[in-house]
Amino acid sequence: MRRFDVEMSNLQNHLLDMAELVQKMIKTAMQELVERDPKQADTVCCLEREVNVKEIVIDDKCLKLIALNQPVGVDLRFITSAMRINSDLERMGDEAVNISEMALDLIRYPELKSLVYIPKMVEIVQSMVMDCIKAFNTSDSKLALSVLARDDEVDDLKDKVLANLKNLMLKSPNIDNIQRTIDLIFVAKSIERLGDHATNISEDVIFMIHGKDVRHLCITM
Amino acid sequence: MRRFDVEMSNLQNHLLDMAELVQKMIKTAMQELVERDPKQADTVCCLEREVNVKEIVIDDKCLKLIALNQPVGVDLRFITSAMRINSDLERMGDEAVNISEMALDLIRYPELKSLVYIPKMVEIVQSMVMDCIKAFNTSDSKLALSVLARDDEVDDLKDKVLANLKNLMLKSPNIDNIQRTIDLIFVAKSIERLGDHATNISEDVIFMIHGKDVRHLCITM
Repeated sequence: MRRFDVEMSNLQNHLLDMAELVQKMIKTAMQELVERDPKQADTVCCLEREVNVKEIVIDDKCLKLIALNQPVGVDLRFITSAMRINSDLERMGDEAVNISEMALDLIRYPELKSLVYIPKMVEIVQSMVMDCIKAFNTSDSKLALSVLARDDEVDDLKDKVLANLKNLMLKSPNIDNIQRTIDLIFVAKSIERLGDHATNISEDVIFMIHGKDVRHLCITM
Repeated sequence: MRRFDVEMSNLQNHLLDMAELVQKMIKTAMQELVERDPKQADTVCCLEREVNVKEIVIDDKCLKLIALNQPVGVDLRFITSAMRINSDLERMGDEAVNISEMALDLIRYPELKSLVYIPKMVEIVQSMVMDCIKAFNTSDSKLALSVLARDDEVDDLKDKVLANLKNLMLKSPNIDNIQRTIDLIFVAKSIERLGDHATNISEDVIFMIHGKDVRHLCITM
């Protein structure tokens, strides 16, 4: 194996480690939200510090790979896509921190059992995150396309969450309900954004494989 | 002037054009919000299409510049920073579209005069956007640092907007107030995110000039 190939495979592994950390952040923040367990917030916070360090290490590796090897074609696309995916993963980590902070506030209020659409949103977004990483790891553009197709579902569910929250405020507009409604609006927004980042990563994977930029196109499967 | 230098200067001009389009989107969306003028929404929508096309053109130019010239050092940092700045600018455009959509909904309800903190947020964020672009154009890392320092002010103002909106819902929790409060929560969130993107661009400018990655550091001036 050429030294360059070893370095490329090393970069891929770093990005997969980064993805694993971010998936752990998302899972932990969701547990904190659903199981109302404030201890999970510390775990999210520690993981974020690891993710921040890793983001800088990966970008540095990408720059050195370009400077020392002058790659072209698919190799260059792999490296620049890795830089973009790295940035989207770090921002997913930020959204997990946002969810964790909102969950910490929500624990102070009685539990809201009626929000069935949030767990559904979480389920779809977690599948999107898992599959965009798998698509990157296995160069599977069909799987990446299937992630794009799921983003509209998440947006529709967010609208349903908002409609539910509006009804809740109308029915019982007390200070506790207003505070937790605002928290949950931000939670829904963060989950939607996780889906957006998974979409960005999937578009990068398709570009990496085919050299075709599918951003801002309407893709149907 | 070497052909490579001409191409690099050409890339910088493309990015400045992109920044101008995005600043126009932000200004137009804010006008739509403040002057309650629904016609501005069409302008925002047209500008978004231009921005989306430009994003792809700029990324393509960056890849070709790397593949054909094998740049290193400050030149390579300039090109990879340009890719990152391009992405942040496009996402700023998306936030302007979000603000425009919320403004369109808000026009259906009577005007809310009491929200003094939103115009203040807008003013600071517009200065951040202008200065991060100027810092990029003139390689001024001191100006870029001053943008980072303004982000906390924006976050504090967002908290004040949320407190105002909570009071409004508590005082008069009718369906109109609840709907426009949710719209304004999203407007405040989008303005805050414009500040975050200006911060990202400023960090890229500092990296481009000094080769020092200042992301995730606590910077004091």
